[in-house]
Amino acid sequence: MERYRRIEGLQMNEEHLWCLKENGYHAGLHKHYEGLFTQGNGYMHARGSFEEGCSDAPQDEEYLRFPDNVTLEKPRHPKSKQGTFIPGIVARHPLLKEEIVNLPYMLGLELCSAGESLDMDRSRISGYRRWLDLRDGSLHRTLIWETAEGMQLQCTFERYISMADTHLCIQRIQVEVLAGEGRLEVAASLRGDVRTNGMNHFDSVVPMAEIGGSLSLETLTEQGNRIFMHSALEASEAVTWQEENSLVTAALRGEFAVQTGDRLTVSKLTAVTTDRDMEEGEAGSRALAQLSRAREIGWDQLYERHAACWKSKWQEADIIIKGDDLAQLNVRASLYHLLRANAPEDARVAICAKGYAGEAYFGRYFWDTEINLLPFYLHTNPQAARNLLLFRYNTLDGARRNAQSYGYRGARYAWESSLSGEEQCANWQYADHEIHVTADIVYALYHYVRATGDEDFLEHYGIDILVETARYWCDRVDWNREGVGELLGVMGPDEYLPFTRNNAFTNRMVKFSLEQTVTCLDSLQGSKPDSYAAAVERLGFRPEEQELFRHTAEKLRLPYDSGTDIVPQSDDFASFADVDFAGIWTDRSRPFGHFISQERNYRSKALKQADVLELMLLFPQEFSREQLKAAYDYYEPITTHDSSLSVAVHGIVASWLNQPEAAVNFLQRVMAIDLSLEKKGAAEGIHIANCGGLWQLIVYGLAGLKSAMWSNDIELEPQLPKGWTELSFQLAWQGERYRITIHPDAHEVHKLEGRSYVAGTTL
Amino acid sequence: MERYRRIEGLQMNEEHLWCLKENGYHAGLHKHYEGLFTQGNGYMHARGSFEEGCSDAPQDEEYLRFPDNVTLEKPRHPKSKQGTFIPGIVARHPLLKEEIVNLPYMLGLELCSAGESLDMDRSRISGYRRWLDLRDGSLHRTLIWETAEGMQLQCTFERYISMADTHLCIQRIQVEVLAGEGRLEVAASLRGDVRTNGMNHFDSVVPMAEIGGSLSLETLTEQGNRIFMHSALEASEAVTWQEENSLVTAALRGEFAVQTGDRLTVSKLTAVTTDRDMEEGEAGSRALAQLSRAREIGWDQLYERHAACWKSKWQEADIIIKGDDLAQLNVRASLYHLLRANAPEDARVAICAKGYAGEAYFGRYFWDTEINLLPFYLHTNPQAARNLLLFRYNTLDGARRNAQSYGYRGARYAWESSLSGEEQCANWQYADHEIHVTADIVYALYHYVRATGDEDFLEHYGIDILVETARYWCDRVDWNREGVGELLGVMGPDEYLPFTRNNAFTNRMVKFSLEQTVTCLDSLQGSKPDSYAAAVERLGFRPEEQELFRHTAEKLRLPYDSGTDIVPQSDDFASFADVDFAGIWTDRSRPFGHFISQERNYRSKALKQADVLELMLLFPQEFSREQLKAAYDYYEPITTHDSSLSVAVHGIVASWLNQPEAAVNFLQRVMAIDLSLEKKGAAEGIHIANCGGLWQLIVYGLAGLKSAMWSNDIELEPQLPKGWTELSFQLAWQGERYRITIHPDAHEVHKLEGRSYVAGTTL
Repeated sequence: MERYRRIEGLQMNEEHLWCLKENGYHAGLHKHYEGLFTQGNGYMHARGSFEEGCSDAPQDEEYLRFPDNVTLEKPRHPKSKQGTFIPGIVARHPLLKEEIVNLPYMLGLELCSAGESLDMDRSRISGYRRWLDLRDGSLHRTLIWETAEGMQLQCTFERYISMADTHLCIQRIQVEVLAGEGRLEVAASLRGDVRTNGMNHFDSVVPMAEIGGSLSLETLTEQGNRIFMHSALEASEAVTWQEENSLVTAALRGEFAVQTGDRLTVSKLTAVTTDRDMEEGEAGSRALAQLSRAREIGWDQLYERHAACWKSKWQEADIIIKGDDLAQLNVRASLYHLLRANAPEDARVAICAKGYAGEAYFGRYFWDTEINLLPFYLHTNPQAARNLLLFRYNTLDGARRNAQSYGYRGARYAWESSLSGEEQCANWQYADHEIHVTADIVYALYHYVRATGDEDFLEHYGIDILVETARYWCDRVDWNREGVGELLGVMGPDEYLPFTRNNAFTNRMVKFSLEQTVTCLDSLQGSKPDSYAAAVERLGFRPEEQELFRHTAEKLRLPYDSGTDIVPQSDDFASFADVDFAGIWTDRSRPFGHFISQERNYRSKALKQADVLELMLLFPQEFSREQLKAAYDYYEPITTHDSSLSVAVHGIVASWLNQPEAAVNFLQRVMAIDLSLEKKGAAEGIHIANCGGLWQLIVYGLAGLKSAMWSNDIELEPQLPKGWTELSFQLAWQGERYRITIHPDAHEVHKLEGRSYVAGTTL
Repeated sequence: MERYRRIEGLQMNEEHLWCLKENGYHAGLHKHYEGLFTQGNGYMHARGSFEEGCSDAPQDEEYLRFPDNVTLEKPRHPKSKQGTFIPGIVARHPLLKEEIVNLPYMLGLELCSAGESLDMDRSRISGYRRWLDLRDGSLHRTLIWETAEGMQLQCTFERYISMADTHLCIQRIQVEVLAGEGRLEVAASLRGDVRTNGMNHFDSVVPMAEIGGSLSLETLTEQGNRIFMHSALEASEAVTWQEENSLVTAALRGEFAVQTGDRLTVSKLTAVTTDRDMEEGEAGSRALAQLSRAREIGWDQLYERHAACWKSKWQEADIIIKGDDLAQLNVRASLYHLLRANAPEDARVAICAKGYAGEAYFGRYFWDTEINLLPFYLHTNPQAARNLLLFRYNTLDGARRNAQSYGYRGARYAWESSLSGEEQCANWQYADHEIHVTADIVYALYHYVRATGDEDFLEHYGIDILVETARYWCDRVDWNREGVGELLGVMGPDEYLPFTRNNAFTNRMVKFSLEQTVTCLDSLQGSKPDSYAAAVERLGFRPEEQELFRHTAEKLRLPYDSGTDIVPQSDDFASFADVDFAGIWTDRSRPFGHFISQERNYRSKALKQADVLELMLLFPQEFSREQLKAAYDYYEPITTHDSSLSVAVHGIVASWLNQPEAAVNFLQRVMAIDLSLEKKGAAEGIHIANCGGLWQLIVYGLAGLKSAMWSNDIELEPQLPKGWTELSFQLAWQGERYRITIHPDAHEVHKLEGRSYVAGTTL
């Protein structure tokens, strides 16, 4: 333990500001903590399960999960669902389509004494504590186990997934004999008996164990991916390991004679590689090489490299809040997951909706990435932001196939994107109608360019996205008899109205997207004729298309203008039915959607999430304060916030409207989404978009930063919550780094040394 | 063969008006003929497959069929799908919900010579002919088989499912040796290797064979139903049968030495019973009893009883057309299936959408029954009509559960009804929005009462349906701020617009339904206080509900009035997109839906089927001729007729508008729906609603009969197609029977002897 504290610069004596704690064990909360305590490093992720698993929670239950509304469906596993995810390793589910594979369980470590296994539910346990240290992403568990034979064992489990050596997972188990004597067994395993949403995606699993203390598991998925796991065991006492493999599990068991005062340590070092890894060499041997290199480096050094990486990440990304310790800890919990979930060097993957902390959203990519997550990365790690956009560039062919599948030209990004960009959403009302995602990506493209100043990105990558999506929009627009362009059959951000006409958010985003396409083409044609000519050639672009884009951009209808009092969510919003919220929603601690049938919901004025307010958040300069206030006053009472994307937006708007109490209330709700024990918010994974929303609420809302979309300079209008004495954070801005420090009565923007941005990642 | 012609009264020398023929065998058409040649008697049905099956068409292929648009999906089986259906024997499909079970194949009869099996695709065959004789529902196949060993065999297969002894299926195979000599084998089987839409619904199948010539197969379905099949074989030559059972198939094989001039006959008599049969006694022994009784009766007598039943049915239902032999035959094909599909004595089942001639619509019940089929039965066999309505009464509890599942009071009939009335539609846009079915049933209830004069039906059964559905409507109606009732989120009959406001058809039907409920309650209260009090008690009816029904009936909005020029399909119809039909629908021989994505279709003014015209067909007295013409002129060009429910309606309206050429054109299209070889229309089953539509097109359209809904007397305005010299049919009307005879220049209504109506079926 001590060594985790040795790293220079990691704040000492600040556990209460850095450690997420589980106080006392409750089986009903275990799944929540599994999600909340997910560890990872971008390359791989593991849920915070107990090393030994849970009794009565088999991980290989097979069943057919049906497409459903993920927000509202009841999760299946009551107690525990382990999770081991490597972004990019996916397989086909017959009903749900592509899903990230829950890989073999690499964390297996069990304690046993005289035939009795340590089991959190069945053993006699006291002094249980568990905590995730956000500083270095290490997970710790300590407890006293009184065995049936009468030994008192102080057991400590520790583990981390290295942020420096991304293929490595490091575990340690320590047992101190407080009283009694007897035989103690430690079993280590790599387990292939894992199912993903009830499906077996493994074609073959080959376990091997070597009594010198090494385990390996080679897995072939039905998609043809190979995953190699190799573990090395080390014990503080001499031991002869016994092989205990089963058909799909590699396992070794060692027995130790112990007596009062003894202290036994067993370490497990696991290297994981796959055929998708971009490093040279054969994946299987690479895992072995990684492992032997790690053993050469040594445990202490491994940890120091790891902790140094985390330290550097926290330097870029930390938000310091003084005067509200709970908010400080909670905000860091979100930042931790944002830092963990991102693979900054691999633009073949993005960040999935559950932050690789659960199976719920199948590891897919939504608009969450561009609208909710991107600002955080833009202003803390622009290289990561660039990679997220490169992911969209890399999947343009998939988007083209989506457009084609509907009979349209150009490219249509998927509502739920597969690895290659194809639509994976199994519910047609979302897949077909939530078309704004395609424009959201263009908005994000511009957000990136304006926040970083990386204009070249447009020329080399962006232009393809712009032209191809513009082609799609021109096919998607319907023209009414007055020659006005319309977007019919649309679901806006509010997913409780699946089928509307001219959704304000969507139409504005599409208009923006087309406008920028025209501007970009004009500018390229004028200033970089070679690039323009290359794009024309590459994209088979016809000059008359430029005029069509311009015409469509100009004639696309917005259902509001600067004089509109209450901006309508869509042309037909008024015609939906009013809702008797008091009569229907009798328990506000549960989602509104549980109290109304989808049929009724779909024809009623009950918003799942911010829609017009989201529009105003993205285009703040286009709406008057009166319009903002009118929209907030009108929509907030009829918004259910059943989506986790909603509350942060409301918090920002409340902050902009100088409603500090409301803003703080929304802040609390944002933090509760993953952290609430009552709702077991993280059980199915982390609401990673909400983590990004929390960053936005603090930076755009409380600090009042003007979005880089609409301001060249750093402009702040802070609104610190009552009691906060300081709010400070770093900000990457157009290639520079700044430290923002806000006090109740003043704020400061301090330029830091060093550039913030490194371009040129391989595609 | 000869004996099929012996029955007095069956028209001789009229094969071309009564026999559906297959001229030459084409493997690609086999599935179509399997559907078209389906035989049955209401109790059980069997598709027109070859007795010996088809090579390369295994019947036990397992796969997962997904919910899809049945109209547009591509069928899976390319060559053959046998079908044996008993209405009421259903099972659960994990994705598709309840489906009728395709039972073990009872027709198995194979010919074999020297190791070579007769196989329509592989054997050397000449002189092939096959025909379904509509007079008695018997199926005949004749061919010459030249075996590899050089025998020339004239083979004849005949079979019928008895209309008199409804548990019996009678088959005969006759082989005449034209040349050569050798050994000939005949194998008879009952096969359990059958899957329904790729699913195995059999928990156990127990085959038995007795070398004296009897076979049996006892099947237990996963739902717990038991099906007993017993066959007895008889051969014209002495034979020792060899048992050839497999795990799930009972089979016997007999060998015969034959030479030129020999004539061998093998008969197979099969009795089928289930645990659902309402007769006394244990089902298994009943099947045996049926069989032995049948053998006592003897083959000739069995046939005579059967043919007499058919004769009587034809007397009631036949439509005689003189001057157009093809139309005559085609119309009879539809009447045949209407007569076959109906189980007149069992109100626990109704008529499924594919007329029990295929798996496509899972054996479920739609609005087709009330709106498309009912008029035929009302005016040919009112007892059958009554049973169809009793089915809805019997499933009122299921309808109550449907309402409850949406959070509504009262009863909501299912878009796709299970046996017990629960919603089975796996696609929510239909299940949730096609609510008109609930009102359609009330319309049908009144249609029945007015056509038969059976007022008691309302008092004993109808009132429950009226009150319970009215309660549902009162919950389902939204009230706008002007106090006007609206029906939002509705799919009308046109299934290409899933989500509309105040669909004219739906709102009018619901208004009618509520109005009738109020009238019925008022009248019952006044004239039959005891019945009223009983209903109040039974239904927990509160007097204030009567006022609520009245108020809702009165205030429910219709999106048109008597002055409306073009009656709009819905309030928002104008806001959908215009369609470039010429550009999109490049091959009119295929459905429009194959040329457009659902997404685009759902926001476009392209109708799948008649919607406003259907309204005008059901409420003709409420629209002026100008409105009818305007609607026809406006909607017909934008109607794709992708639904089989559409063309007949258009034919009737064209006829009413004195557009004889258009009417005849629609008549041709109606007849082509099941009969077209190009479209293989019957491959997945019979479009039974279209058969009912054909009857309506002839009776309401060409004969111009005023619906009994709106006329107390038989009123006709005939419009005979060019070339038709006579059109005549029987008509049951308010308890009497009439013969209608129409000539180009005159028509006659002749009252017949005998009442048309027998009431009082057991529930």
